[in-house]
Amino acid sequence: MPAPFTTEDFTRRMALAVETAALAGLSGLVVTPGPDLVYLTGYRPTALTERLTALLLTPDTEPVLVVPRLERPDAEAAPGAAAVRFTDWTDGTDPYREAVAPVLDPAGCYGISDSAWALHLLALQEALPDSRYASLTQALPMLRAVKDPDELERLAAAGGAADATYRRILEVPFAGRTENEVAADLAALLLEYGHSQVDFTVVGSGPNGANPHHEADDRVIQEGDTVVLDFGGLKDGYGSDTTRTVHVGEDAPDEVTEVHEVVRLAQQAAFEAVRPGVECQEIDRAARAVITEAGYGEYFIHRTGHGIGLTTHEPPYMVEGEKQQLVPGMCFSIEPGIYLPGRFGVRIEDIVTVTPHGGRRFNNTPHDLGTVA
Amino acid sequence: MPAPFTTEDFTRRMALAVETAALAGLSGLVVTPGPDLVYLTGYRPTALTERLTALLLTPDTEPVLVVPRLERPDAEAAPGAAAVRFTDWTDGTDPYREAVAPVLDPAGCYGISDSAWALHLLALQEALPDSRYASLTQALPMLRAVKDPDELERLAAAGGAADATYRRILEVPFAGRTENEVAADLAALLLEYGHSQVDFTVVGSGPNGANPHHEADDRVIQEGDTVVLDFGGLKDGYGSDTTRTVHVGEDAPDEVTEVHEVVRLAQQAAFEAVRPGVECQEIDRAARAVITEAGYGEYFIHRTGHGIGLTTHEPPYMVEGEKQQLVPGMCFSIEPGIYLPGRFGVRIEDIVTVTPHGGRRFNNTPHDLGTVA
Repeated sequence: MPAPFTTEDFTRRMALAVETAALAGLSGLVVTPGPDLVYLTGYRPTALTERLTALLLTPDTEPVLVVPRLERPDAEAAPGAAAVRFTDWTDGTDPYREAVAPVLDPAGCYGISDSAWALHLLALQEALPDSRYASLTQALPMLRAVKDPDELERLAAAGGAADATYRRILEVPFAGRTENEVAADLAALLLEYGHSQVDFTVVGSGPNGANPHHEADDRVIQEGDTVVLDFGGLKDGYGSDTTRTVHVGEDAPDEVTEVHEVVRLAQQAAFEAVRPGVECQEIDRAARAVITEAGYGEYFIHRTGHGIGLTTHEPPYMVEGEKQQLVPGMCFSIEPGIYLPGRFGVRIEDIVTVTPHGGRRFNNTPHDLGTVA
Repeated sequence: MPAPFTTEDFTRRMALAVETAALAGLSGLVVTPGPDLVYLTGYRPTALTERLTALLLTPDTEPVLVVPRLERPDAEAAPGAAAVRFTDWTDGTDPYREAVAPVLDPAGCYGISDSAWALHLLALQEALPDSRYASLTQALPMLRAVKDPDELERLAAAGGAADATYRRILEVPFAGRTENEVAADLAALLLEYGHSQVDFTVVGSGPNGANPHHEADDRVIQEGDTVVLDFGGLKDGYGSDTTRTVHVGEDAPDEVTEVHEVVRLAQQAAFEAVRPGVECQEIDRAARAVITEAGYGEYFIHRTGHGIGLTTHEPPYMVEGEKQQLVPGMCFSIEPGIYLPGRFGVRIEDIVTVTPHGGRRFNNTPHDLGTVA
């Protein structure tokens, strides 16, 4: 287990959030349960209910965590509890008027968690009719994007567990077994290597590999198939997400090795483009240029990557039009692919972080076309 | 497996929802993923994401289900798919302006799912600045309260599985084992008898039984303990929720048998009060009167019951102040209890449905104080 986050970690994160919110023209933040609340306070309520739990961040007061009284003991046991002031409320009282309204500016504009319940937003709008709200993710997309050293350590460990999973999956039989069976092997290995939660186990064999949204089904894998393996989840609260492409049996056809080599070079080009100050879209362009140059541009049908941290998909996105500049500590996937409809697909994905000097990979198994039996 | 719900079932439910919404002064409903969407369309998306999925119900058009294009094949496989018109949308387009706005009255007032994401509500408010929204649960609390015959059949089957679980738990050893171990037995039995999901397994032994919010911990159960067992979950999509109180060893103390008898009579009195037209609060009053009369009024510290259906806790609530009248087909718990702080607790709970002639129980194991070893 990595060392737990400290009160200082949470205090620093909350102060930075308030500062960034002010720069975005917001009066503060209303954060309900989810990854943002975990990031800012370490608190993850066991059950999501209609009862209001919300962290209120404003420039002029200390952070306030509003919780139902029943939940207060759990909330006070959260790692960041010492960094907030608690306000609890009981059934039959109005937490919006009594607990939230006194803390907020009645005419302020607040970022509110995207996944906050409409029930809560409607009640806030009624309690403070002149207040306004904006999507927290749209207003502060980079809130959790720059990871601190303890987060980087967790992401590196998750990547290492994914690498160990890949090495072991090369040893299991593929031919004659279904995609679902191999997917179950991947899930079991991720758990064996310390993941607490498996989010996806894509096994796209033969023509299924040509659909990047395919997960796994009951198709029986054949000798000669090309198979896309894309797997990840959470370990100690932080995400892994890795893709390798393998071939069932020796002597892959020339076309498969050629396509695979193009994807490998595209992944490498995007990785080499990583450095502070570069726009996210440049990472996408670097991968896309290699694939387009090789004549496969129309078969690379998704963005090049997405951020990762407390969740397996989050900002920043490596996509055309995203002008956000890379900052040391950002972590994201680089995962170009080529998908030949009805035939096969190839994708290679590593998680990468930005350092002052360039990119650093959290996945370190070879990029060769793997061979399985 | 019970027979699946039909297109006619979903069409009838949606038509009734629109009608009820109009009576409540609403222009229609915006229903996002959750139990209400399952009730109205049978559709339960596998993952909750930031992408809008919403059922639009209005008096003048057929029901419209807005889905991300990626999810459309799954949505079209839902049991109620034939009862709605699909509108899909792709990343990069604005589903609020392009898919939702054309269907809604720009100045209408809509009931929106309590758990709809704030992100969606904010975008709707921006796309239709003159539209207004209300909590669907507050506006239409009884939307799912009156069960149709196929739902009653499922709830009866879930109750039967809970009864079988209780009979078997009487055979396991209690003394010398922890509450957590007995709770695990309860969970395993619920699954063995066909539950797909266990929602709670309360084992409150000795003084722990005096806290109605206690679940189960590592307390070792002793000979002579009184133990509250409250367990339930979902079977074929519908809920069970049953409580019985047992004594470890023969010869329970007189006080335990006396308190238990008071609770038994209170549960029976509330059950006998059930008939169409009676206000929910009368069910609470019937149970409370017996307990107060016996001198234990201050130790009955929660409401008498809650509705049950696609979830294990939903309207209607059997609580003072709830003037909703009972209607044939409503299903709810009757679960009075007495909690003597630091000593022991007793609770007896059955799920009951309203028939034209009175109440009918979905739980039918004896109400006696059970004896375990």
